[in-house]
Amino acid sequence: MKALGRQILAEFFECDIQVLNSVDAVKMFMQEAAAISQANIVQSVFHLFNPHGVSGVVVIAESHFAIHTWPEYGYAAVDLFTCGEQVDPWKAFDFLKESFKATKVMTMEIQRGQLDVKGKELYYNPPIIKVKKDMVPAGVSA
Amino acid sequence: MKALGRQILAEFFECDIQVLNSVDAVKMFMQEAAAISQANIVQSVFHLFNPHGVSGVVVIAESHFAIHTWPEYGYAAVDLFTCGEQVDPWKAFDFLKESFKATKVMTMEIQRGQLDVKGKELYYNPPIIKVKKDMVPAGVSA
Repeated sequence: MKALGRQILAEFFECDIQVLNSVDAVKMFMQEAAAISQANIVQSVFHLFNPHGVSGVVVIAESHFAIHTWPEYGYAAVDLFTCGEQVDPWKAFDFLKESFKATKVMTMEIQRGQLDVKGKELYYNPPIIKVKKDMVPAGVSA
Repeated sequence: MKALGRQILAEFFECDIQVLNSVDAVKMFMQEAAAISQANIVQSVFHLFNPHGVSGVVVIAESHFAIHTWPEYGYAAVDLFTCGEQVDPWKAFDFLKESFKATKVMTMEIQRGQLDVKGKELYYNPPIIKVKKDMVPAGVSA
């Protein structure tokens, strides 16, 4: 079983509101995250919405990094989709968690494009291969 | 429990190879998918890679649609991330499945940004709320 890519879906909660509402800051951090993870940036597009919130995508040669922020909730949804062994999306995740000052995070890592030439297994089934929870609040079971 | 957005991760297998390797066709279909789902397009970026494969993102006011294609495998990874009640990402999914002539698909729908002001539930946990499998080949258990 071989997967063409992997994708981290990251939920960043209780972030720095000022950062989440700055298109310049969000773009800078997302591009820096791409560089840190050894990805090759093809193009970046970022927009600041009215009254608030940033959406942006860094298209990389190895797929894409995307973000949507809700400053009013201190929340950002981040996708880190990469292909190949060279790029490590977890380095991008660690950097972004720090940059956004997220105090609660939840992540899922999903394999994309699972292929099996024998066709006997669930080669089209993208399972969650890793679930990582940080800083689970007291009273909440992980 | 309220989620800010929902995201469909779609695995398209056994697609039309010519379509998957045409940046013009992929871009047209992705933009049309956005229109069909009632999304508002903010910006589109698409690239054709060497020797083959297309990557592209349609940034919409309601989040984003992204695609990466591997024509050599007849495979495309598609993300349909939307916010609000007006946009129906499943209409985009149905349109793209037809457009790419995918004969096998697998999808996951994930809620993003689950918030609970009471903080008593797993408000930071983005569960898979729907798994849909189409056209499971004979001999493979769903």
